Amino acid sequence: MINWNNLDTIDSYQALSKVEKVDLAKVMSGENGADRVKKYSVSMGDGLALNYAAKQVDDNVLAALAKLAEDTQLVEKFEALYNGEVINTGEKRLVLHHMTRGQLGEAVMADGVDKRTFYVEQQNKIAEFANKVHNGEITNAAGEKFTTVVQIGIGGSDLGPRAMYLALENWAKVNNTFKMEAKFISNVDPDDAAGVLNTIDVAHSIFVLVSKSGTTLETLTNESFVKDALKNAGLDASKHMIAVTSETSPLAKSEDYLAAFFMDDYIGGRFSSTSAVGGAVLSLAFGPEVFAQFLEGAAMEDALAKNKDLLENPAMLDALIGVYERNILGYQNTAVLPYSQGLSRFPAHLQQLDMESNGKSVNRFGEPVNYVTGPVIFGEPGTNGQHSFYQLLHQGTDIVPLQFVGFKNNQMGKDVVIQNTTSQQKLCANVVAQIVAFACGKADENRNKNFEGGRPSSIIIGEQLTPKTLGALLAHFENKVMFQGFVWNVNSFDQEGVQLGKVLATRVLAHETDGALKVYSDLLNI
Amino acid sequence: MINWNNLDTIDSYQALSKVEKVDLAKVMSGENGADRVKKYSVSMGDGLALNYAAKQVDDNVLAALAKLAEDTQLVEKFEALYNGEVINTGEKRLVLHHMTRGQLGEAVMADGVDKRTFYVEQQNKIAEFANKVHNGEITNAAGEKFTTVVQIGIGGSDLGPRAMYLALENWAKVNNTFKMEAKFISNVDPDDAAGVLNTIDVAHSIFVLVSKSGTTLETLTNESFVKDALKNAGLDASKHMIAVTSETSPLAKSEDYLAAFFMDDYIGGRFSSTSAVGGAVLSLAFGPEVFAQFLEGAAMEDALAKNKDLLENPAMLDALIGVYERNILGYQNTAVLPYSQGLSRFPAHLQQLDMESNGKSVNRFGEPVNYVTGPVIFGEPGTNGQHSFYQLLHQGTDIVPLQFVGFKNNQMGKDVVIQNTTSQQKLCANVVAQIVAFACGKADENRNKNFEGGRPSSIIIGEQLTPKTLGALLAHFENKVMFQGFVWNVNSFDQEGVQLGKVLATRVLAHETDGALKVYSDLLNI
Repeated sequence: MINWNNLDTIDSYQALSKVEKVDLAKVMSGENGADRVKKYSVSMGDGLALNYAAKQVDDNVLAALAKLAEDTQLVEKFEALYNGEVINTGEKRLVLHHMTRGQLGEAVMADGVDKRTFYVEQQNKIAEFANKVHNGEITNAAGEKFTTVVQIGIGGSDLGPRAMYLALENWAKVNNTFKMEAKFISNVDPDDAAGVLNTIDVAHSIFVLVSKSGTTLETLTNESFVKDALKNAGLDASKHMIAVTSETSPLAKSEDYLAAFFMDDYIGGRFSSTSAVGGAVLSLAFGPEVFAQFLEGAAMEDALAKNKDLLENPAMLDALIGVYERNILGYQNTAVLPYSQGLSRFPAHLQQLDMESNGKSVNRFGEPVNYVTGPVIFGEPGTNGQHSFYQLLHQGTDIVPLQFVGFKNNQMGKDVVIQNTTSQQKLCANVVAQIVAFACGKADENRNKNFEGGRPSSIIIGEQLTPKTLGALLAHFENKVMFQGFVWNVNSFDQEGVQLGKVLATRVLAHETDGALKVYSDLLNI
Repeated sequence: MINWNNLDTIDSYQALSKVEKVDLAKVMSGENGADRVKKYSVSMGDGLALNYAAKQVDDNVLAALAKLAEDTQLVEKFEALYNGEVINTGEKRLVLHHMTRGQLGEAVMADGVDKRTFYVEQQNKIAEFANKVHNGEITNAAGEKFTTVVQIGIGGSDLGPRAMYLALENWAKVNNTFKMEAKFISNVDPDDAAGVLNTIDVAHSIFVLVSKSGTTLETLTNESFVKDALKNAGLDASKHMIAVTSETSPLAKSEDYLAAFFMDDYIGGRFSSTSAVGGAVLSLAFGPEVFAQFLEGAAMEDALAKNKDLLENPAMLDALIGVYERNILGYQNTAVLPYSQGLSRFPAHLQQLDMESNGKSVNRFGEPVNYVTGPVIFGEPGTNGQHSFYQLLHQGTDIVPLQFVGFKNNQMGKDVVIQNTTSQQKLCANVVAQIVAFACGKADENRNKNFEGGRPSSIIIGEQLTPKTLGALLAHFENKVMFQGFVWNVNSFDQEGVQLGKVLATRVLAHETDGALKVYSDLLNI
């Protein structure tokens, strides 16, 4: 029997708030610090591990978090989710993105089909299509191979797939699996589409139109923009476009597309990178085998997320430490700082994933909650961030919890030795140094050069950023966000907060405005 | 006589905290809201205006802010700065970035020269060099024109110039001033340099090495990486590289460079886009005339920032409203949301500009302050952000003040009509709708669809993103950050918070570690 209760009604949450706080600068110093780094680590599989030694936890805090995980029935709720309960209560939908990469529990029937079979079929259809594009069975009208794939989508149809593409682009080039360059058009600003079209050869480009409903205004607008460009180039647009949509959308059976691949209402946009939304563009760019490895990595984390032992469940542990930082320690933000150039847009994806899922003020029954929920997420890759906003992270008046990611090896295998070390060694030395600098600080009589320390961080360490480890990273954070939503008792799978803006924008365009809205509209010449 | 006092010792700050708070949802409704939008606007010149109607201010709050501006002598401090006082007290340096774009006050002599003359000379030298590259007087060894310019730099030598390049790339293409494509290498992750080199033709590329000290490890490392690539291509590296550095740096007179252009210690990295740091790459990419227009826009805002009337000084007004939000209303973050695809990386630049300048816990005398200082800054372009993190901004448990930017016209002049409106109209309709949605909210019996409103925003509105308006935007935010630093009594021009990480990283690379640092180093195979 699952109970959905507000966090502040849970006894173990009250107990957690009374556990003695950890003095991070103190416990991370000397040999005790070394012991913590060895001890506070959990394997994520495939050489990945989450090290949380530099978080403000100790055995007492962890025990209290374990009790909270148990009392809030986090694993049971995850089981209910993947076994097909209506977890997205607001929209009365199942939540099945895990099923795009594996069968975690019971078979789930919906819309009259076995959903796992459905997702595998779509993956296979995409693989077949991509192989035909790569081997020249599907070509442009002149019989020439397509060289570029352009994704047209916004939000979850853009940020996740774009971040994943950038993460694997260079890896694929050195591993000889790079098939086609990918570009992305998302913004309704017409300069976005025009700018991208300026850099590609449309005659050799295939466009992937991604919209679950088939009605996303930005995406349909950009589709028209692209169709005009194809027409102006004397090309038949329908021979250059494919659709990723739901089976019931107006795009599904249209003759405007070479092919259509399907997702469904049980895959939220921000959780859709492992569905056809990511599958089409990534399979075209890197080949279906690479996409399959990516799914394998994600499935690996999903399996770990079933573990009821908090210390053996990295996503649940990460989630609960985050709740502790947010609700007990009172930190408002989290920075995501990957020391890997390939992950340059991964923080932008996590920003949507986390903030759109848990930026809520009502619980899953629509009642206001009396505690804070999802944090603000931001980040840039290290070492770039070090030369940008780290000043505030080290010496600002607010503490910002940090989430580092680092790999022992770079992706491209090229390096240079300067001052006796490689760039890769410098990169790794920097992330290690930052963790300790943030945690321990350094006293200085000149207060301007003084570092208080006590600034918590964790790090996910891996061998290399590959399709599999990328899939694992993605699923880790998806599951972290899911578990936090369970703890906060919010529905992480809807986004009613985006509706009002849409309604008002429609009214502005119809000139049905008054008051401030009218004057602003006049100022912008609408 | 200028007094440098902590904010909490200023009587008018105490008075400000007692002024009745504005109920934003209420005042922005109906005709009162329309009146506010008309009234609460200040011109920034060249068709730009800052509209702050949707901020939590009214005439009483503004009067209290004006008193605070007067008591903290903001304009007098700015005058002292541009007249050459040692405002960067930590590093005992003048702060002269305004002088790269004009002479605001008295002539300033330093290092034995008139500094304004010095900056103009550098700008002219760059213009001459760029013209020679463009007209083929300076070519590669084969006598062929250079087609690509690659900036090698990190932090302020990267973020600002990169954001400015991206902001003008498409504008230049349609205005026939696009001369060379620019790329950027910043991260010490060797995949950054390798990835960029993979996409360019090194034989036709000119590299701009940017390091004020000539000792930035990331930058020197990437220089070596590039030199190896040039050598491997059978090219003479010294014929493909120029340096932007200080006259006293080891790079200044080296024969390794085709030319060297100078900045000095009075230009902080994050304030250096209008110096040779931005000048070289932007003049090469778009021509010196475009760079001159960019400086003209910046100078326009600098002149406005001298105005003692708060309501006629957009940067000072923006700064004080930000302080009010941060210190009196208790908001921790600010989101920057440009509705312009060209400004895609402008928020990343502002993140450094603001957080590195004012993320400080001690005042300019090195004494701890008892109030919060610089906020966390993040942002992405709209409408993309709407489909990402706006959910939290609308319905999250914390209020995040917002800073919108919007233009009546797009840059490229191409558009498409869907449902009777252009994409540009949709873009503008969206930003207008968001302002009102955030401010006014909308009651709904279904609490999940309820919007409380009361979420403050301002918008800078312009005709078009051009070199001049871009320069104006840049300087507006630079001056805003400067004024806020004055109010908080911090030194906005040093960055001691980045030092500890550097020291520890050096120790890691030398294997001089113990405790946690050693175990982390082992985990990452350093």
